[in-house]
Amino acid sequence: MTVGIIGTGMMGGSFAWLISEKKPSWNLIGYDASEENLEKAVEVGFIDEPVSLDELVKRSDLIIITIPVNAIVKLLPKVLDGISNKQVVMDIGSTKEQIVDVIKDHSKRGRFVATHPMWGTEYSGPENAVKGAFKGRVAVICNKEESDNDAVELIEGLYDLVPMQKVYMEAHEHDIHAAYVSHISHIASYALALTVLEKEREEDKIFQLAGGGFESTVRLAKSHAAMWVPIFMQNKENVLDVLNEHISQLRKFKACLEKENFDYLQELIEGANKIKRIIK
Amino acid sequence: MTVGIIGTGMMGGSFAWLISEKKPSWNLIGYDASEENLEKAVEVGFIDEPVSLDELVKRSDLIIITIPVNAIVKLLPKVLDGISNKQVVMDIGSTKEQIVDVIKDHSKRGRFVATHPMWGTEYSGPENAVKGAFKGRVAVICNKEESDNDAVELIEGLYDLVPMQKVYMEAHEHDIHAAYVSHISHIASYALALTVLEKEREEDKIFQLAGGGFESTVRLAKSHAAMWVPIFMQNKENVLDVLNEHISQLRKFKACLEKENFDYLQELIEGANKIKRIIK
Repeated sequence: MTVGIIGTGMMGGSFAWLISEKKPSWNLIGYDASEENLEKAVEVGFIDEPVSLDELVKRSDLIIITIPVNAIVKLLPKVLDGISNKQVVMDIGSTKEQIVDVIKDHSKRGRFVATHPMWGTEYSGPENAVKGAFKGRVAVICNKEESDNDAVELIEGLYDLVPMQKVYMEAHEHDIHAAYVSHISHIASYALALTVLEKEREEDKIFQLAGGGFESTVRLAKSHAAMWVPIFMQNKENVLDVLNEHISQLRKFKACLEKENFDYLQELIEGANKIKRIIK
Repeated sequence: MTVGIIGTGMMGGSFAWLISEKKPSWNLIGYDASEENLEKAVEVGFIDEPVSLDELVKRSDLIIITIPVNAIVKLLPKVLDGISNKQVVMDIGSTKEQIVDVIKDHSKRGRFVATHPMWGTEYSGPENAVKGAFKGRVAVICNKEESDNDAVELIEGLYDLVPMQKVYMEAHEHDIHAAYVSHISHIASYALALTVLEKEREEDKIFQLAGGGFESTVRLAKSHAAMWVPIFMQNKENVLDVLNEHISQLRKFKACLEKENFDYLQELIEGANKIKRIIK
């Protein structure tokens, strides 16, 4: 079996490591729009053979697209144009609605499986690919009924290798949830970083104190714009809904402090503590 | 040497574990306003002997106060009333200005050292005390010049045992920095939890998807109100300044999305990425 990875960065590499660990006999070929990335992927060792995009599309039994979501929307129809009825294509983009929409009437629609494995790091590039990634996380598979059964089974089998917990939903529903559990966290983290950096112009002791819970909330602010601007663009409406809600929650904290309403502040915090039900 | 821990919860216990690891010959006695906490501390094993508050103050060479900051402000003058000129008292509260202020004219002021080790977890209670805590973090020592030299040396020696990096500053300055690197992270995290929980009323798939960066930004939202309401109360002005700045940063993201100004969005994200200079 030959697997072609389009996009040999952190995510593509982490997927490639997964396959080479679990299915050492499979052949891994790769393509990246950046020659440097592709060379590094071979050097790091998760790609057996660098190829052109055309060659990858021709030779792969399974094509895994791991590039920014705006690039997926552009590239996916062309990839489907080039495959036979035996090949399978999957993506792992963080948005799903525009991606399934752009190929919904394509004659090869059935060969494509839209997925989102809920795992990532704030780093990018082939040198940051992670061995043993994805484990225990959720893999969302969207609009399953639009994909051929054999294609879905292949992808399910891939996620079962990790294993990941498979969750099925419509792309529209996925994008709403993703806005809540992932996209808003990134915006909050970016805004927090900017808040602190604004202050840092005046003071620099702040550098030394960056303990106290700061790293975990600001970790995501290191995430790359090339990946995240397209996600926010594609999921604009949902992200705006959540962002408005988030700002209104922050305003409640502000009002509590301004009015010294510490009973209500306690109530808000105890409400927030209920998140323990969701994350252990 | 006898060390008395006032407040045998998560922080007090983590401190006690530190001492019992590094100085096994020292005697650890403890007091907690909650009898249950104190019994559990003995059961868990980080306190050798439970005592009354009076007995602890009488017998301890070093008293470590690890209780919420509002309780410190109330208790600290009484503790200083009860000690001799050979005993030393320290606190580890997350705010410093009100604490040093309340005892600034006390005759035993010199025996007290105001500190803030920049380490914590979102959990509370003696059962959540951590062995090997504090390592590699910063310990802030405030208003050093108001403490006797031998008292400061004892506490510096304690932090050197870990070791922690010692940073010296005025209490007023500490509270400003703490608002930026710790207190705002907690408010952002609480508000994020409330944002998601608000949505969760309507949908429950969100439970399953809580990967994708969500845990790290919302982790702090599990933190206990009994600890954090008093911190926000005492550091109200600084926290409000930072919170206003944070809301205004979030509004920039909102405006970018509403106006589809994706170039500016990219600029904001690239600005936030500069946080890499502060956290690795």
